Amino acid sequence: MKLINRQIHLVSRPSGEASADNFKLVSAEVPELAEGSVLVRNHFLSLDPYMRGRMNDSKSYAAPQPLNAVMIGGTVGEVLESRNANFKVGDKVVGMGGWQEYLVVDASQRGVLQKVDTTHVPLPAYLGAVGMPGVTAWYGLTQIIQPKAGETVVVSAASGAVGSAVGQLAKTRGARAVGIAGGADKCRYVVDELGFDACIDYKQHRDLKSLSLALKEACPDGIDGHFENVGGMILDAVMLRANAFSRVAMCGMISGYNGEPIPMTLPQLILTNRMKIEGFIVSEHLELWPQAMQELGALVAAGKLKYRESIAQGLDAAPEAFLGLLKGQNFGKQLVKLI
Amino acid sequence: MKLINRQIHLVSRPSGEASADNFKLVSAEVPELAEGSVLVRNHFLSLDPYMRGRMNDSKSYAAPQPLNAVMIGGTVGEVLESRNANFKVGDKVVGMGGWQEYLVVDASQRGVLQKVDTTHVPLPAYLGAVGMPGVTAWYGLTQIIQPKAGETVVVSAASGAVGSAVGQLAKTRGARAVGIAGGADKCRYVVDELGFDACIDYKQHRDLKSLSLALKEACPDGIDGHFENVGGMILDAVMLRANAFSRVAMCGMISGYNGEPIPMTLPQLILTNRMKIEGFIVSEHLELWPQAMQELGALVAAGKLKYRESIAQGLDAAPEAFLGLLKGQNFGKQLVKLI
Repeated sequence: MKLINRQIHLVSRPSGEASADNFKLVSAEVPELAEGSVLVRNHFLSLDPYMRGRMNDSKSYAAPQPLNAVMIGGTVGEVLESRNANFKVGDKVVGMGGWQEYLVVDASQRGVLQKVDTTHVPLPAYLGAVGMPGVTAWYGLTQIIQPKAGETVVVSAASGAVGSAVGQLAKTRGARAVGIAGGADKCRYVVDELGFDACIDYKQHRDLKSLSLALKEACPDGIDGHFENVGGMILDAVMLRANAFSRVAMCGMISGYNGEPIPMTLPQLILTNRMKIEGFIVSEHLELWPQAMQELGALVAAGKLKYRESIAQGLDAAPEAFLGLLKGQNFGKQLVKLI
Repeated sequence: MKLINRQIHLVSRPSGEASADNFKLVSAEVPELAEGSVLVRNHFLSLDPYMRGRMNDSKSYAAPQPLNAVMIGGTVGEVLESRNANFKVGDKVVGMGGWQEYLVVDASQRGVLQKVDTTHVPLPAYLGAVGMPGVTAWYGLTQIIQPKAGETVVVSAASGAVGSAVGQLAKTRGARAVGIAGGADKCRYVVDELGFDACIDYKQHRDLKSLSLALKEACPDGIDGHFENVGGMILDAVMLRANAFSRVAMCGMISGYNGEPIPMTLPQLILTNRMKIEGFIVSEHLELWPQAMQELGALVAAGKLKYRESIAQGLDAAPEAFLGLLKGQNFGKQLVKLI
C-alpha cells in the first residue's frame, strides 16, 4: 500500500504581504526508497521568518523557493524505513524536511539528516532552543557581540525563539540583558520567566525619541551589544544609545521582508560610536554548530535555557500560522505538529 | 626679545556650513619654557575633515574644540629651543601643534611630540602619506577590510590623502583598486599616477541608479572591501554591489558633518550580503602606528606610495583652505605652509 504524503507547495509569489493564496495543499504518493535513502515521518515543522524572504524571486543570500514545490522548512521526526546503514527505524532525526508529513531523503549526503538524542532534550527543542534559532542566537552573541561581564546586551523580538536565547546566553556570560518585545504579556514573560533584566514594550513607543528614552532608562550604562531581529526604528533607537566599540549582530530585518525600504536614519553613528555591524546567516557556519548545540543542549537539560512554543495542529494550519508569525502573533517558537 | 606667535582661534560654532567668521587670527607672546618643555617652529599644518566635527558642540567621539582657543591640528616642525633631554635644537618633529606658528609643549608626556627621520621621507609627508592620513588608510585597509589578492576594494575620496593611500596599499596586496572621486582631473590622477584600476567621477552620476551602474562596470566581480570617506549615496551605491562577506571600513562621513541627516537607504543589505561595517578612529589604535609608519615610510622612500599636496601659503590662508577642503576643492593632502 502506498503512503499518501500531504504537502504544502508555494504556488505564487506575494506582491507585498504574503497571503494564504500563495500556498496550496497537495497530496502525493511517497516513492519507493532508493539505496541510501531514508523515510521519515515528520513530527514537527518549524516556521521561521527567513521563509518570507525565500518566497520572493529577488537576489538574496539564498535561492528563492521554487514555485509548485514543497515549501522549505526545518523538521524533526522519526525514521519509519531505512536503506541507509547510518539510520535505523525509530531513530529521531532533524533535517530540512519541508512543509509535508513524510520525507524521503538520500541520507548519504553529509548533514542532510542528523540523529538527535532525546534523553534529556525534547524532540521539538531541536527546532528551537537547541536547533537553528538557538544556534543563531549563540552565533550572533558569542561570535559577533562577544559580551563581557558587566556589559549591556539588547535584543529585539526578545520573546521569540532566537531573542529569548540571546538574552539568556548573555546572562550566563554576566552581561545585563534587555529585551524589546511587543506587548505587556511578552515583556512580562521575558523578565519574569526568562530572567532578562528589563524589557521594553515597543508598542508603547511609537516614535524614535520615545523608544530611545525607554532604552536610556533600561540601559543606564549604554548599550555594548545588540542582536537585531527586526530593524527599522528599533535599530535606529539602539544606535542612539550605543557605546563606543559596540557590536551589532544583524540577524533579521523582519520589518523589511515585504520589500518596503527601511532606511537606517543615522549611519554616521557607526563612525562616531566606532560600532561594528555584522550580518550573518547561521547556516554558513556549520563548523560551529556542534559546539553551539552542546552548550544549548546542556543548558536546556539543566533548565537554564527556557523557551516557549506556539504549536499549530496539523499541516493544514501551517500557512495561517506562518502569516501570524510574520505579524508577531506567535509567542515563542512557532511550530506545526504534524502527527 | 619675546617671540610673537600668530594663532587661529575658533570663536563661534557653525550652524550648518562652517564659514570664515568662525575663525579669528590672534597674536600671543610665546611663553618661557618650563623644565621638560620644547619650543617648536611649526613648518606645516595639516587640514583634515575631522576638524569640522570638532567645531560642533555635539556628542562625538572627541571633545569639541573649545571656543577662543587655538584650533586643533597636526603639525610638523623644527625644535628651536629645548628643556627636554629627549629633544635637541634642530630635531624635526611631528605633533598636534595646532593652527599656529609656534608650539610650546611639555614633551615629557609620551606621544605628544615625535622625532621623525627626514633622510628619505620629506617632512610634510609625516602629515600625509606617512602621518595620520596614511595610517588611517593602513588601519582601515589592513585591519578591517583585510583584502585578499584578487578581491576588489573601492575607496571614496580616492584622490585625497587617505583615499590615495588606501588604493595603493590595496594594490600592494594584489587587490583590484577602484576609486570614486569628484571630477575628471582627479580620476585621471587616481588611475594614471596612483595606479588604481579604475576611478568613477561621482559628479557624472547624480542618482543612486547611475552610480550603482558605474560601479557595476568598474567592479565586474563585485565589491569585497570598501573604505568609506564620504557616506550618503556613495555608500548606498557600494552596498548594492557588495559581495557576500564584504567589509566596509567607515572612516568618514564628510557629507554629514554639517548636521543634516544622511540615511543609509538599504541597511537590509548588511544582512543579505553578510557585510561587516566598522567605524574606527585611528588615534585609538596608537599601538599599531609604528608598524603602519614603517610600511608607509618604506613605500614612500621607494617611490611606491605616491601622493599629492595642496599647499596654502601662510597661517592667514588656513581658514579658506579648510573651507575649500570641506567642499572638495583641494587635490591631495591639504597643508598650510607656516614658514
